[in-house]
Amino acid sequence: MDIASIIGLVVAIVLVFISISLGEDGVASVKAFLDAPSAMITFGGAFSCVLVSHTMQDFINGIKGIKLAFKVPVLNTSEMIKNIIELSNVARKEGLLSLEEATAELEEPFLKKGILLVVDGTDPDLVRGILETELISIEDRHKKVIGFWDMVAAMGPAWGMIGTLLGLVAMLNDMNDPSSIGPSMAVALITTLYGSLLANWVATPIANKLRVINAAEMQLKEVMIEGLLSIQAGENPRVIEEKLKSFLAPKDREGGQDEADFGGEE
Amino acid sequence: MDIASIIGLVVAIVLVFISISLGEDGVASVKAFLDAPSAMITFGGAFSCVLVSHTMQDFINGIKGIKLAFKVPVLNTSEMIKNIIELSNVARKEGLLSLEEATAELEEPFLKKGILLVVDGTDPDLVRGILETELISIEDRHKKVIGFWDMVAAMGPAWGMIGTLLGLVAMLNDMNDPSSIGPSMAVALITTLYGSLLANWVATPIANKLRVINAAEMQLKEVMIEGLLSIQAGENPRVIEEKLKSFLAPKDREGGQDEADFGGEE
Amino acid sequence: MDIASIIGLVVAIVLVFISISLGEDGVASVKAFLDAPSAMITFGGAFSCVLVSHTMQDFINGIKGIKLAFKVPVLNTSEMIKNIIELSNVARKEGLLSLEEATAELEEPFLKKGILLVVDGTDPDLVRGILETELISIEDRHKKVIGFWDMVAAMGPAWGMIGTLLGLVAMLNDMNDPSSIGPSMAVALITTLYGSLLANWVATPIANKLRVINAAEMQLKEVMIEGLLSIQAGENPRVIEEKLKSFLAPKDREGGQDEADFGGEE
Amino acid sequence: MDIASIIGLVVAIVLVFISISLGEDGVASVKAFLDAPSAMITFGGAFSCVLVSHTMQDFINGIKGIKLAFKVPVLNTSEMIKNIIELSNVARKEGLLSLEEATAELEEPFLKKGILLVVDGTDPDLVRGILETELISIEDRHKKVIGFWDMVAAMGPAWGMIGTLLGLVAMLNDMNDPSSIGPSMAVALITTLYGSLLANWVATPIANKLRVINAAEMQLKEVMIEGLLSIQAGENPRVIEEKLKSFLAPKDREGGQDEADFGGEE
Amino acid sequence: MDIASIIGLVVAIVLVFISISLGEDGVASVKAFLDAPSAMITFGGAFSCVLVSHTMQDFINGIKGIKLAFKVPVLNTSEMIKNIIELSNVARKEGLLSLEEATAELEEPFLKKGILLVVDGTDPDLVRGILETELISIEDRHKKVIGFWDMVAAMGPAWGMIGTLLGLVAMLNDMNDPSSIGPSMAVALITTLYGSLLANWVATPIANKLRVINAAEMQLKEVMIEGLLSIQAGENPRVIEEKLKSFLAPKDREGGQDEADFGGEE
Repeated sequence: MDIASIIGLVVAIVLVFISISLGEDGVASVKAFLDAPSAMITFGGAFSCVLVSHTMQDFINGIKGIKLAFKVPVLNTSEMIKNIIELSNVARKEGLLSLEEATAELEEPFLKKGILLVVDGTDPDLVRGILETELISIEDRHKKVIGFWDMVAAMGPAWGMIGTLLGLVAMLNDMNDPSSIGPSMAVALITTLYGSLLANWVATPIANKLRVINAAEMQLKEVMIEGLLSIQAGENPRVIEEKLKSFLAPKDREGGQDEADFGGEE
Repeated sequence: MDIASIIGLVVAIVLVFISISLGEDGVASVKAFLDAPSAMITFGGAFSCVLVSHTMQDFINGIKGIKLAFKVPVLNTSEMIKNIIELSNVARKEGLLSLEEATAELEEPFLKKGILLVVDGTDPDLVRGILETELISIEDRHKKVIGFWDMVAAMGPAWGMIGTLLGLVAMLNDMNDPSSIGPSMAVALITTLYGSLLANWVATPIANKLRVINAAEMQLKEVMIEGLLSIQAGENPRVIEEKLKSFLAPKDREGGQDEADFGGEE
Repeated sequence: MDIASIIGLVVAIVLVFISISLGEDGVASVKAFLDAPSAMITFGGAFSCVLVSHTMQDFINGIKGIKLAFKVPVLNTSEMIKNIIELSNVARKEGLLSLEEATAELEEPFLKKGILLVVDGTDPDLVRGILETELISIEDRHKKVIGFWDMVAAMGPAWGMIGTLLGLVAMLNDMNDPSSIGPSMAVALITTLYGSLLANWVATPIANKLRVINAAEMQLKEVMIEGLLSIQAGENPRVIEEKLKSFLAPKDREGGQDEADFGGEE
Repeated sequence: MDIASIIGLVVAIVLVFISISLGEDGVASVKAFLDAPSAMITFGGAFSCVLVSHTMQDFINGIKGIKLAFKVPVLNTSEMIKNIIELSNVARKEGLLSLEEATAELEEPFLKKGILLVVDGTDPDLVRGILETELISIEDRHKKVIGFWDMVAAMGPAWGMIGTLLGLVAMLNDMNDPSSIGPSMAVALITTLYGSLLANWVATPIANKLRVINAAEMQLKEVMIEGLLSIQAGENPRVIEEKLKSFLAPKDREGGQDEADFGGEE
Repeated sequence: MDIASIIGLVVAIVLVFISISLGEDGVASVKAFLDAPSAMITFGGAFSCVLVSHTMQDFINGIKGIKLAFKVPVLNTSEMIKNIIELSNVARKEGLLSLEEATAELEEPFLKKGILLVVDGTDPDLVRGILETELISIEDRHKKVIGFWDMVAAMGPAWGMIGTLLGLVAMLNDMNDPSSIGPSMAVALITTLYGSLLANWVATPIANKLRVINAAEMQLKEVMIEGLLSIQAGENPRVIEEKLKSFLAPKDREGGQDEADFGGEE
């Protein structure tokens, strides 16, 4: 579990509850902010319209995407580089065919597929072609999930506003009792609040997190492609290391100092 | 019919009606939300201005586009790959010319055209050129329909606001009877509500759905182009399979496990 | 004249007038919506600021652009393809030089220029270079006119809001007579209404229409470039036809069935 | 001086003053719209925050950029083409070295630099490389000035809103005297008005004008690069003329008819 | 320290305090604008949701990024060009191997790495490949920090609005005491004010500043790559100088006149 993301999500909603509880009625004030019909129109409307734009399977994948936003990636780029250099040493000493054994232990399916292609003696251009097509296809599928949450982030406030308009029109049509105007307005505004929370507490942060995870995974896979093609070309392991380490921040190259990256290079 | 999209559209509007009916007057409240002049200015204005930007033919195609958003595509990528591998086996055993017969059963006009070009002995570069030009032209035409609904999504709220401004100015000019202010405001706001619904209930979801369908169709056609050129080059059916399966999510390759895609590759 | 665009523009403004006339005072209500100072600040301010960003000549071209949005293009792509295939037959039978005569009847200056370059025996790379530079230059000039209307669409609502702020500040400073507040607010809002109409009734639709026209013209010119270079290369007229027809929708290829394009290809 | 831009700027602000003066108090009403603290927070805040994003030198260059938006370019593309064709004739008759003399009269430093490179016998690829690097660097510097005004256009309304919020909070905290609410609100809104004017009267038009000037200058420099390389390659002056005139609108080629450009090519 | 950025930040907030202190109660008015719960929900909510989208390490790097926005870069492009030309002279006279000594004094790690690659006799294509991969990786890491502040700039106003909605709903539910409406509204608006300040006083200016710094650093590194490859290719130092100076503004080439850049080239 990715602690940072969980902490962020929890702290934000706790702050909302604290903020509400600071009112005169204390924790009891929370009741005034819970309104089932408002939730129904905002969340129901938003997710229904997101469903219109997706197949049922993509919709379910989108919802499930929330789980993936909190998953910590198993491998990072610098470990992957170590693995590839090891593989290049094996290939140099025992020949490309010896890599087949090495794949038995590999969990990463993309790297495994690439090694099998190399072991099969596939033409380097074709290896690159197949792996890059796969890379693009993976990214396309990731973008579908990201697009799902981007659409939730747009539909949340839109249906919040639709809910508020429904409430306002009803209220304005029936203003006989002045004392009811305040509470009616309050209820009308709750859908806007729900829509804002759906967009800014959940959907946008999730979409952005998935974007970050996708970027990291794409970089990792680019490192694998570059590494595999270098192994196939029989390049010197030291040169391969030099090449692949260019993908890393200076501090990750030695694993030593823990400094902010931006400034370290100016 | 694409059930998910239909369900989404229906649920969203049902929620709006439930939300309205929860008011004091029950289902009778719906009457207060139906206003012919408001519908006229919002929908009439929005579609008129969309018409300004299109030829009559493109406008009709745009409207018809709503039907296409609910159509389930006949073929999916993994079936197409199977077809192409079959064709490559036929071509290998009986020669390229034997493909002509195979096209008789094909419904997909794009693949058919490509095979006929190959059978005619057209130069591979020209085959690619012709098919890619066609691909781009198809996408251009799809984008016209998508652009139509994007423009409806922009014009809906704009004309909703114009309607509200018309109502507000009229109301503010004639405030002799305070008790009429509420209902007048209510009517003025209904155009904004209609505009929001036009954009967020219909136009944006339809446009996004068409975008998704277009992306799937473009990928399918790219698979066809790659496959056809591989067949023409006389490549090994196993290599062609390897190549084309890179377009698929891992779970679709064997047809076995039904897991979310994003995480399965990390 | 492009009937669709004219109809759209007229219907939209007629709907506005009907909407206003539905008020208590009937057609006389229209008077309340006409306010010369509001028009002055909104339209004057918007167009003045558009003028700041343009030379006088570009400003005049921009204004004139409105006329072009309603012009029906003389040639469509499928007629152009017929012409080019005819030319390729002439060139095949009577030699490239015979094309010179054919240009005498051509009205399209771009095609004419291209043929003269071919007849002059210009190097094919240079022919492509010259024609593509011209294509890009034409598009740059079209984009200036489109940008003009995009800027009007942005400046309209902006100056509408400036007018409303001017009106609100004046009103708020002088609230001695409560009965004047309503009408003052009404007048203040009229500039916002004018700005919205300028943007959504005129400027955005015109800009989008010009974008559509530009796209069609660019496609037409690409067809001409491809066709001319094929003629120069002495390609078979049947191959040229195959190549150029890829630019067309299936239904336009035979001129037969009149079906929506998007779905016809799935 | 570019008359159109000056006229636009002056007319817009004059319209604002006329609009204000149409109020009951005539020209004296203007006083109500002048508020030093409002100007301080809006303009001060906006420009301070623009300063945060720039070095002092870039900030000064940005401010000075306003001057450049009104400068009429010395040369236009069609005159430049004439100059280049002249140079190509000189080079053809008297050799490339003779161009050195010609540069003595040239005011345009970019063309001068290019000719000196050609005269020095620099490799054509290197000439193109050096000139294109310079082109990109010039555009980068232009974009800094354009970005400065884009940021002013964003910060103006933002700080206008901050000012209004400051005013509203102060007013709402002290509502003992109902008669002061109107004027307090008026003052609070003035910052929003100032912010809108800063963005829509000055910053956006200036930024757009600079964009137009940059595009024209980039095109001019591209013409110079193409022309210089053609001269260096010893191409026929007639071919060079044909090539370079593709950058011009048809009406500018002969200098004859003065017609709108968009339609003239359909 | 970058004085301009510091001045901008300080002046903006001082203007806010002056603006507040101009109220009736003088400096004491500031108290009305300080509200701990408002700060908690706005800043807490915004940063929590930014945390959701980042790993803990990236979040910390993002916060630290504020420091980097005020750092003055050690080297500018024109000094770097001088260094490279010096190195090219050394390489020409004493051979490429002699560059190894020169790196001992170099502080810039990117240039150092490049020289060591050249000294090692690495293939020029590989040198370019390694350095460009590094360049892209550096930019990717910079963009993460910039994206952090862009997200703060979006989340600030969003959570400001959520805070205001919370306040409004609470207020509308409890309107028994009319005299409390004003102050309650005031408090509700303070979160919107805080959100606006977070976005427009801090986050957007910081993000834009980092963008400017990143662009400068990328240009500097491109100069290094071009320079190193020219040294490796054994090019004439005068040609290298000519090449690299294309990256500079004319005024920086000689260091003489101090004129605005945009106009100096027209």
